[in-house]
Amino acid sequence: MYQALVGQMCKHLVQLEHWLDATVAYAESKKIDADRFLDFRLAPDQFALARQIQITCDTAKLGASRICGKDAPVHADTEKTIAEIKTRVEDVRAYLAHFGAVDYDGAALRVITQPRWEGKTMTGADYFLEHVTPNFFFHLSHTYAILRHNGVPLGKRDFLGPLTMHAPA
Amino acid sequence: MYQALVGQMCKHLVQLEHWLDATVAYAESKKIDADRFLDFRLAPDQFALARQIQITCDTAKLGASRICGKDAPVHADTEKTIAEIKTRVEDVRAYLAHFGAVDYDGAALRVITQPRWEGKTMTGADYFLEHVTPNFFFHLSHTYAILRHNGVPLGKRDFLGPLTMHAPA
Repeated sequence: MYQALVGQMCKHLVQLEHWLDATVAYAESKKIDADRFLDFRLAPDQFALARQIQITCDTAKLGASRICGKDAPVHADTEKTIAEIKTRVEDVRAYLAHFGAVDYDGAALRVITQPRWEGKTMTGADYFLEHVTPNFFFHLSHTYAILRHNGVPLGKRDFLGPLTMHAPA
Repeated sequence: MYQALVGQMCKHLVQLEHWLDATVAYAESKKIDADRFLDFRLAPDQFALARQIQITCDTAKLGASRICGKDAPVHADTEKTIAEIKTRVEDVRAYLAHFGAVDYDGAALRVITQPRWEGKTMTGADYFLEHVTPNFFFHLSHTYAILRHNGVPLGKRDFLGPLTMHAPA
């Protein structure tokens, strides 16, 4: 299950890269600097686009690495351009692609904790379903919503990406 | 897995009801009509709040019923008030609560189709992971984002809801 969910996250990160390409094309058509979008946000006390994308990446990266008991590569959150943030997304996708079925052995029962949890723990299963999955989609959807709110032409198919459909029998 | 994911959706629908309560309280504090929020949207060609909530409900309801091979109750999409839309959310939660482990037997391999798919099909597994789950979180997150964009005081904990944490050993 975790491998399937992480696989879906990788697909959504590919879609996110397409959204960034669409943002650059849209900005060019309006003769504005595409990197300006990185500072846009939906509410004064919500994160701006760049941070939404960084957290989307970190949620997938740390979610997979923690339930598999591995150390994840560190990203410094210093991206200032669409090109740099796209490289971040690509890096995380490449990292996640290395996880195979065997890496998820024991993931459901692994004990997960974080410094700010003050010693409390979650099982890998609960952590992935209750924390990682909703957080990933929260920040992914906010990324999409910030772009749509600011005029980038995207639709639901750009959000979902390709579906595994079978031709009529 | 499907039962666990549907269980999470039910939890998020409870949170959504809390957001609606927070919206009513916020509107009262500002002396405005809370039902006005149902027409708010983030982009001219995105759905307004009422429709985002209706689709959030339908995605969970139809996702579970289709992979379990059951007929789902029909909702007419006629809600005009926060109170009515909250009843819709409660109805769907009650419906989903009836599904037990045995209902999901064979769900992964069930053949799913929809009129607009022109005869094409998806397996229950692919449909639930590639279509239902991202769509549910897309519309749930847009619901949250519309409320935050319009001043309703909510935070990430309101989005995630309670987490299954264990006390330090």
